[in-house]
Amino acid sequence: MNTLQNLTLKMDRQPTIRMKPDKQLDCSLSQDDGVWMMASSFIIFTMTAGFGLLESGRVSSKDEVNCMVKNVFDVIFGGLAYWMFGYGLTFGDSKHQLGRYVGFGDFFFDPERVSDDDSTDEKGISYSLFIFQMSFATTTSTIVSAGMSERIHLKSHCFISFFITLVHSVAGHWVWDQEGVFRMMGVVDSAGCSAVHLVGGVSGLVATLYLKPRRNRFAKNGIRTVSDPTKAILGFLMIWWGWLAFNTSSNYAVTHGQWTEGMRSAVGTILASAGGGVVTVIITRLSTKKIQMDMLIDGMLASLVASTGGCLYFTPWQATLVGAIGSSLALAAYPVTEWLKIDDPVGVFPVHVVGSIWGMIAPAIFVYRRPMNFGPPECDFQTSDEINGLLYGGGFYLLFLQSFVILVIGTYSAICAFIILFLIHHSPVGLRVDKYTEELGADLIEHGLAGFNVMTYTIEKKLDTKTLSAVLMIIVRWRAKAKLGAQRRKKIHDSGSVAPQQAESVEMNVIHRRH
Amino acid sequence: MNTLQNLTLKMDRQPTIRMKPDKQLDCSLSQDDGVWMMASSFIIFTMTAGFGLLESGRVSSKDEVNCMVKNVFDVIFGGLAYWMFGYGLTFGDSKHQLGRYVGFGDFFFDPERVSDDDSTDEKGISYSLFIFQMSFATTTSTIVSAGMSERIHLKSHCFISFFITLVHSVAGHWVWDQEGVFRMMGVVDSAGCSAVHLVGGVSGLVATLYLKPRRNRFAKNGIRTVSDPTKAILGFLMIWWGWLAFNTSSNYAVTHGQWTEGMRSAVGTILASAGGGVVTVIITRLSTKKIQMDMLIDGMLASLVASTGGCLYFTPWQATLVGAIGSSLALAAYPVTEWLKIDDPVGVFPVHVVGSIWGMIAPAIFVYRRPMNFGPPECDFQTSDEINGLLYGGGFYLLFLQSFVILVIGTYSAICAFIILFLIHHSPVGLRVDKYTEELGADLIEHGLAGFNVMTYTIEKKLDTKTLSAVLMIIVRWRAKAKLGAQRRKKIHDSGSVAPQQAESVEMNVIHRRH
Amino acid sequence: MNTLQNLTLKMDRQPTIRMKPDKQLDCSLSQDDGVWMMASSFIIFTMTAGFGLLESGRVSSKDEVNCMVKNVFDVIFGGLAYWMFGYGLTFGDSKHQLGRYVGFGDFFFDPERVSDDDSTDEKGISYSLFIFQMSFATTTSTIVSAGMSERIHLKSHCFISFFITLVHSVAGHWVWDQEGVFRMMGVVDSAGCSAVHLVGGVSGLVATLYLKPRRNRFAKNGIRTVSDPTKAILGFLMIWWGWLAFNTSSNYAVTHGQWTEGMRSAVGTILASAGGGVVTVIITRLSTKKIQMDMLIDGMLASLVASTGGCLYFTPWQATLVGAIGSSLALAAYPVTEWLKIDDPVGVFPVHVVGSIWGMIAPAIFVYRRPMNFGPPECDFQTSDEINGLLYGGGFYLLFLQSFVILVIGTYSAICAFIILFLIHHSPVGLRVDKYTEELGADLIEHGLAGFNVMTYTIEKKLDTKTLSAVLMIIVRWRAKAKLGAQRRKKIHDSGSVAPQQAESVEMNVIHRRH
Repeated sequence: MNTLQNLTLKMDRQPTIRMKPDKQLDCSLSQDDGVWMMASSFIIFTMTAGFGLLESGRVSSKDEVNCMVKNVFDVIFGGLAYWMFGYGLTFGDSKHQLGRYVGFGDFFFDPERVSDDDSTDEKGISYSLFIFQMSFATTTSTIVSAGMSERIHLKSHCFISFFITLVHSVAGHWVWDQEGVFRMMGVVDSAGCSAVHLVGGVSGLVATLYLKPRRNRFAKNGIRTVSDPTKAILGFLMIWWGWLAFNTSSNYAVTHGQWTEGMRSAVGTILASAGGGVVTVIITRLSTKKIQMDMLIDGMLASLVASTGGCLYFTPWQATLVGAIGSSLALAAYPVTEWLKIDDPVGVFPVHVVGSIWGMIAPAIFVYRRPMNFGPPECDFQTSDEINGLLYGGGFYLLFLQSFVILVIGTYSAICAFIILFLIHHSPVGLRVDKYTEELGADLIEHGLAGFNVMTYTIEKKLDTKTLSAVLMIIVRWRAKAKLGAQRRKKIHDSGSVAPQQAESVEMNVIHRRH
Repeated sequence: MNTLQNLTLKMDRQPTIRMKPDKQLDCSLSQDDGVWMMASSFIIFTMTAGFGLLESGRVSSKDEVNCMVKNVFDVIFGGLAYWMFGYGLTFGDSKHQLGRYVGFGDFFFDPERVSDDDSTDEKGISYSLFIFQMSFATTTSTIVSAGMSERIHLKSHCFISFFITLVHSVAGHWVWDQEGVFRMMGVVDSAGCSAVHLVGGVSGLVATLYLKPRRNRFAKNGIRTVSDPTKAILGFLMIWWGWLAFNTSSNYAVTHGQWTEGMRSAVGTILASAGGGVVTVIITRLSTKKIQMDMLIDGMLASLVASTGGCLYFTPWQATLVGAIGSSLALAAYPVTEWLKIDDPVGVFPVHVVGSIWGMIAPAIFVYRRPMNFGPPECDFQTSDEINGLLYGGGFYLLFLQSFVILVIGTYSAICAFIILFLIHHSPVGLRVDKYTEELGADLIEHGLAGFNVMTYTIEKKLDTKTLSAVLMIIVRWRAKAKLGAQRRKKIHDSGSVAPQQAESVEMNVIHRRH
Repeated sequence: MNTLQNLTLKMDRQPTIRMKPDKQLDCSLSQDDGVWMMASSFIIFTMTAGFGLLESGRVSSKDEVNCMVKNVFDVIFGGLAYWMFGYGLTFGDSKHQLGRYVGFGDFFFDPERVSDDDSTDEKGISYSLFIFQMSFATTTSTIVSAGMSERIHLKSHCFISFFITLVHSVAGHWVWDQEGVFRMMGVVDSAGCSAVHLVGGVSGLVATLYLKPRRNRFAKNGIRTVSDPTKAILGFLMIWWGWLAFNTSSNYAVTHGQWTEGMRSAVGTILASAGGGVVTVIITRLSTKKIQMDMLIDGMLASLVASTGGCLYFTPWQATLVGAIGSSLALAAYPVTEWLKIDDPVGVFPVHVVGSIWGMIAPAIFVYRRPMNFGPPECDFQTSDEINGLLYGGGFYLLFLQSFVILVIGTYSAICAFIILFLIHHSPVGLRVDKYTEELGADLIEHGLAGFNVMTYTIEKKLDTKTLSAVLMIIVRWRAKAKLGAQRRKKIHDSGSVAPQQAESVEMNVIHRRH
């Protein structure tokens, strides 16, 4: 146990003031650190818009508004869950029998309960740590949300957001809290590779499997319809830039020279995505002769996920390489879901599961703890008996530890996600929408938008006796559209002998007559 | 008057250097504060894109580009107005007879006039205060803009943006300037609840009433068409994240421990929206059986507006509660506009008027001034004889004061807005577009985009003799579309017996049986 | 040469630590500067999304996704190029014979090679300078990208992005590196007016000319189709706010009072765009009787480009004036491209070429170097023998120098761009897409999105034997659509006498019969 306690000081995430009451002021967090965490959380929250657009742009247009709303719900219900219980489960009191495994206390987070005084840095740091971690927590439920697109009840989604946030919070305790079991063993997870992406990815995968594929997704000759690829790429770009803050601020601190880690992390993040990007472009081009929008996005996102584990340590070339490998692995896993008929609308499996597994393994190879000598000796978190990665004389310890963490957190997430889904499924709330809702689209049924696309949306009146007839009309109109299309194609086929020039000449006539 | 002068030191917004030349350097604003204000202003400006999308996505598609352009104009003309006169009216010299009521001086803001020297902090703080306040000022005209959607001349809009910014600036003097009348009385308005949202909301409501509803808005069986709900939600998300900076930086400072207030404010803002979100979801669901996109957005925005008054003070649970009440009140006011046949396209009344009234009342209940002991004694802005809210022994003083401020600023905004609208209406510029422009859409008439939707926009040549025929053609095409639609439907109906309809008839049966 | 060396200390961009090993710690860059640069780079990267949307929204809808992807590629390939060679060419070792003209060393940027130690500020500053400059570099290739819309092979685009970044990097050495030839002469280029906008603009113009116009762009009676003006304006707004960081952080530093320059720059940037905005609105209105979306955007962007040259120096009224003149010149140049039949889809010539020429001239008139007395005397970069602009007693030296720089960098960019284009054109990669690709759209051919618009996109399977028939069907469908349109118009024309009410009544019947 002594060695374990010794390890506490070698964590890659610096502890917060509140956890080290015996620390001198000289090396504790203060204004600059708090402002930095908070500003980063502001940027991280913008990723929600990105996740919304990414999902919304890649599903069929009958559900695009629903996807945006689900991402709003992730912040509402995930945020509330984090305030009520999540923060307490992660950073609450660990001085109890199960302290290694779960925090307890600080529920309904309110640092004013502890102290009235605005004069010390303690309260400010608590607030900024809270909002920073909350932005991470809501990201987790956003990932799960993506796996359930187009077939989950909106009300069920509220409960899932709430509970998945708590699942994340417990895993967060293990890797982030000073008393957490994996942190004490020396796990390296700079920016939530395991606690955010692995938890979110595995839960999302379980949800995808539990819910079964969307109707007609694997039908013969079925085509996938995407509502708006431009929107999806815009969403990806928003996530990309948000990720810079996500990784960079993951050591919680800029003071006492710790900002150098942040700067290295920022450069590593952008280079990981560049490295991943090149590999993605090459693989996509070779395997499909095109640059498929969804492969491009997912390949690059996987490189970003891969960078989250060790971003504070990776040197530029290491980050580029880690990103490139991450993209390759994700795209190699791409055909697997199709082959297994897993309906994973936004690539949760290749991006978040495959990406985060590699993201946890990579530090085990590359981590090298550099000397940091700032301030008084008790601030030297990075002591000489560090655990380095394989390449830097650290041996296999980190590799075993990181693999063990992947295994435990992966299994834990899968079990929790299954229990949550099972309970909701068998509660009166239910899980999957019925056939009609799925075919008509959540935008109509859940949001009263009577139309299939951006052009014809109209807002319905309150639900009343007339709604049913409206729905009827929609069905009729829909069928009619399909029929009309068929008729048109038939006409075209019948008049296949008519030279296109003829049509043009007709048009010309009309135009000429107008002059 | 002595007590009033005493109160000056207890303001919730810290005074800037320039206003306190006798202060020692130790507690004056400096680099960190300036950079913080400026960075926040950058984020706040991004809210313009959000406001544009929110409005653009909720009007009919024939005016969506126009809405974006109007929001660009708000920054151009509002920004110029603020530079020319606005800043001077808010923070200009108060050493004249009407100094309590309006600033005078510093017009065409230029701190280089005062001093050439880049070596002192004074000039930097002036610049950052200016850009920070400018971002608030342009937000005000954006709110008014939303109330006049789809029926205001673009050129009239330029004048309105310009003058509403000045209306805001005078109200800003009252609540923000150290010599301002309400500030001296001890008003609590952390982030412009009265000076931005109440001024903007009331002016917008007056504009909505003055302009009368859009054609057919309250027609029998009329349906509301929205161009793109996804865009509207994206806009809301952008506003949401911008609001974090809007509230957090509202004490102008991070140094001398004042950053703790900012952190509390950030957490309060996100929790207010989470609390408001849950209530909104429940109310929307119960009253419409759906999650209506516009109610969701407006309910949540109201919770954010409600948080602006006392965000620097609210503890987490208070913020959550204030947000929840704000959303409830706004949604309770929702049917009123419909009932009174007020055409309020983007919810200016429920969000900004109702939201900001509650936002000003809430601090009167919850404000509790915490001890802050930093630096030399003269930096202790928060002295012991503070005015607290109802719950913290402050009695009814704040409640009366805040209500009085609501009344005065509300009346003042209404009168000013009416005068501005009346003068523009009776000038050669005019106010409301004619019938044809309204029916054809501003995108065509004002911007030369010959199309009703995203698919068919084409840019017209310069306006010349041919334009009339173009407009004519549009009308013809438009009518034709409607006719063609009818013809198609007729065809479908007539050919009801053809093969693919067999499936349909089965479906019909199913639906019939449901009756 | 002695005078030249003397000038080194009067640069408008402060040198970094690494370049001044003899400097004392007191006036060297540290944590606050590094964090500031990095945070700015995060904001600047968001401009990529803006550039993508701006381009995507202004081309025809058959290429909108392609434009987004190209902007993603600019960061991937431009970013890699900057990492591999670009940074080394700009800031690498200058202690060789050609040191004035190009840096050499620091390729595959990795400050860990220099030092293992995280305890000094040096490494952190290196990292933050790198990511900051990288965000500038990728902007350059984005500008070029815009000039080649709708007719460049995606694979050719990768190479162009890569090499244009290097062209920029060499020019960057001239104006930014302490040993750079123009910097030693005293050039004023605060935020890359010459190294980013002039290089990008001229290269883009050359690319536009080399590639020749899009098919039918200058056809008689040809109309320009834009996919989505709302998206274009959203893109502009994103660029606008990003520009605030782009200009503000261009002196690399906030410490030692240098933040005052940044604040002045922020205010100047927003006022330049407001001044430019008013002029743009007036010119657009007078010349077209409308507010044309593309003229509005380009006029305002030109004012922003115009502000980049001297933003650190411009006082508020100067910035407003500089912006207004920039917009006027750009819009005056607007008919030139049309007249010369240059197909410049997103206004690269008026915005970036005209804008940056004026942006380089303006400082020659307005620059006035203010006293800055911070820290020890050796930190006084701004000494008394400064070169001021025309209006501040500096004579014509700056005017000649700035003009000379425009000439040299303009010519250099044109030659380099031509060589790059020529080589790629005559390599197996090729440059311009064939007729079918151009007519069918890059979204179909390069990205497998079988549809012309946001409503009907479907993702194709892997390219195989069936693809050809798919493409064939697309062509057939396309022709058919045109034919159907013609038929419809003919019908409408023929039945021109039918009253619109008649059509309506038909529709009514259909609906009634449905009940």
